[in-house]
Amino acid sequence: MTTPLAAKIAREYGTPALVIDMDRVERNIARIQAICDTAGVANRPHIKTHKSPFLAQLQIQAGAQGITCQKLGEAEVMADAGLDNILISYNLIGEEKVARLGALLARTNVTVAADNAVVIAGLSNAGISAGRPLPVVIECDTGRKRAGVETPAEAIDLAKQIAGTPGLSFAGFMLYPTETGWQEAQRFYNDALGGVRQLGLNPTIVSTGGSPNLKNVGNLDGATEHRPGTYIYNDRMQVAAGVATWDDCALHVYSTVVSRAAPERGILDAGSKTLTADSGGLDGYGLILEHPEARIARFAEEHGFLDLSKTNSRPAIGDVVRIVPNHVCVVVNMADEVVMVRGDEIIGTLPVAARGKLR
Amino acid sequence: MTTPLAAKIAREYGTPALVIDMDRVERNIARIQAICDTAGVANRPHIKTHKSPFLAQLQIQAGAQGITCQKLGEAEVMADAGLDNILISYNLIGEEKVARLGALLARTNVTVAADNAVVIAGLSNAGISAGRPLPVVIECDTGRKRAGVETPAEAIDLAKQIAGTPGLSFAGFMLYPTETGWQEAQRFYNDALGGVRQLGLNPTIVSTGGSPNLKNVGNLDGATEHRPGTYIYNDRMQVAAGVATWDDCALHVYSTVVSRAAPERGILDAGSKTLTADSGGLDGYGLILEHPEARIARFAEEHGFLDLSKTNSRPAIGDVVRIVPNHVCVVVNMADEVVMVRGDEIIGTLPVAARGKLR
Repeated sequence: MTTPLAAKIAREYGTPALVIDMDRVERNIARIQAICDTAGVANRPHIKTHKSPFLAQLQIQAGAQGITCQKLGEAEVMADAGLDNILISYNLIGEEKVARLGALLARTNVTVAADNAVVIAGLSNAGISAGRPLPVVIECDTGRKRAGVETPAEAIDLAKQIAGTPGLSFAGFMLYPTETGWQEAQRFYNDALGGVRQLGLNPTIVSTGGSPNLKNVGNLDGATEHRPGTYIYNDRMQVAAGVATWDDCALHVYSTVVSRAAPERGILDAGSKTLTADSGGLDGYGLILEHPEARIARFAEEHGFLDLSKTNSRPAIGDVVRIVPNHVCVVVNMADEVVMVRGDEIIGTLPVAARGKLR
Repeated sequence: MTTPLAAKIAREYGTPALVIDMDRVERNIARIQAICDTAGVANRPHIKTHKSPFLAQLQIQAGAQGITCQKLGEAEVMADAGLDNILISYNLIGEEKVARLGALLARTNVTVAADNAVVIAGLSNAGISAGRPLPVVIECDTGRKRAGVETPAEAIDLAKQIAGTPGLSFAGFMLYPTETGWQEAQRFYNDALGGVRQLGLNPTIVSTGGSPNLKNVGNLDGATEHRPGTYIYNDRMQVAAGVATWDDCALHVYSTVVSRAAPERGILDAGSKTLTADSGGLDGYGLILEHPEARIARFAEEHGFLDLSKTNSRPAIGDVVRIVPNHVCVVVNMADEVVMVRGDEIIGTLPVAARGKLR
């Protein structure tokens, strides 16, 4: 079964195609802005999900106070398009990056995160070359064991270092609590806050993160902002986390069934170079709306292997199906553009302008 | 520890960067061409690995008779750059693709694979619109359960259909035997060959595939060509398969250690948006040449999680390390360009011209 819109998408663009429904996009933007507004924290959406200045502007127009980028190259693309107040939530290191960061700081308001003394020492030149201080927030680990200092004492030491480094100013703290780790984050933050106040410093940014954490926004006493990313599109992981419904999933991958060599299996024209091997810890690699019991079992680079053994609803060769991907952020990053629709109408394409900005 | 070349790469381009050593690339090209020459089969390298017309031309200059593409969009990029004799090893379906295929056929020699009657019926218009027959090879499954007819009888039926369809000509068979499935492939091929000969048809292309199958090239009696892809760069999977050494790995991902929040862990600036979540079935996500016992344990989108618990050789923050990825084909597809070096000299960058051609 192919919906009329799917047939139209396939005819005009071919498959696989990433298709976003702008009604849902706008609804998601409004919903999350309202959550932040109600909680009394600013919204600083993470653009890693959509990588589009156009969508970032929609988020700003809806009330977001700024944006978050994970890579310097993403921030450059956003600044080129006129976005301002950018947090780069990542340790930037090396003279090539610091030079680019200085150039970016000279033309836009940018804040960076850091979790260690080597990175902080290196950042100094960015502020010096820009002729104004670079605001630095300290990344704190509160359970994910990714980046971030592990103790408040380390955070306080780094705050002291930032305050004493030419070209830098202490801006606050960046946290990314686990969904169940907000009390731990609160304790961490309280201790770090006490320490920096003794140094005569005051955080202006206390940032929390994550779309799965939307149910926790405002739960950290002292938080000034939240950095949700995935909510603009949502995906199977967000539904599994209980923070979105299938109707909130604004991006579908349209894919054609190109082979049905046996009754219980089929092949989609979307493989790991479209849907990615990132399972997000879920079983199967996406929900097929037309065949929810079909399982995308595994991938070759351009083949999606369909296991149809558990379903009598089986697609025919040539059917165009709609897939909710497991992890939408990495899927968007595979494509140069997405197709925008509103209901059953095609609007046009939107470049994924910051796609593939590895650095 | 950072090598002088790694320091230079980081300074000029930043990290993460995909770096190819042209001495190794050329050696790999020559080695595999010699294997095909010795076996008496033509070499039709699969460009899905490098996605570069420049490298495809090197393969042709070394003796390859044509190229293989998995996507129509890849073939268009290659044809635009002057490549000819292109096999698209994939079921193409839908009027948008068939129209593009017709346009491609009108300007270059292109053959396509098909495994079912729906696809074959649709292809007709490509040959008709181009004004010359489109050669079609029948994809045969000999154990991988991907695309491909499962029995010689189905292959014979499809050959008959192709021969009777306006705009198409029967060109032969495409096989992709498993590493241990060559006897099975031989039986399949013999039966299919007998059947099509009874129809008065003769294959001109009998194509086998796979870099891991380089040890089997020539083992299929009747094969006319082989389609190796990964051999130009090689990767951890090829080494594990016993068809390449670490010195044959021509592409390294240069990545900076950006965080060392605890003694036994660290963070690389290459995450799933650089190295991809495709493990290739191996433990860990790449070999770090400087720290072979460090384990790239998991990813966030822009973070590689280093587990250093099993090694005393631990990188410092700011170290630039070289990583042999598990599956190089999907990693190349994440980048807009690769940096070319020869030994310790940087030559410049090479666009991954057919990157992200989803369709």
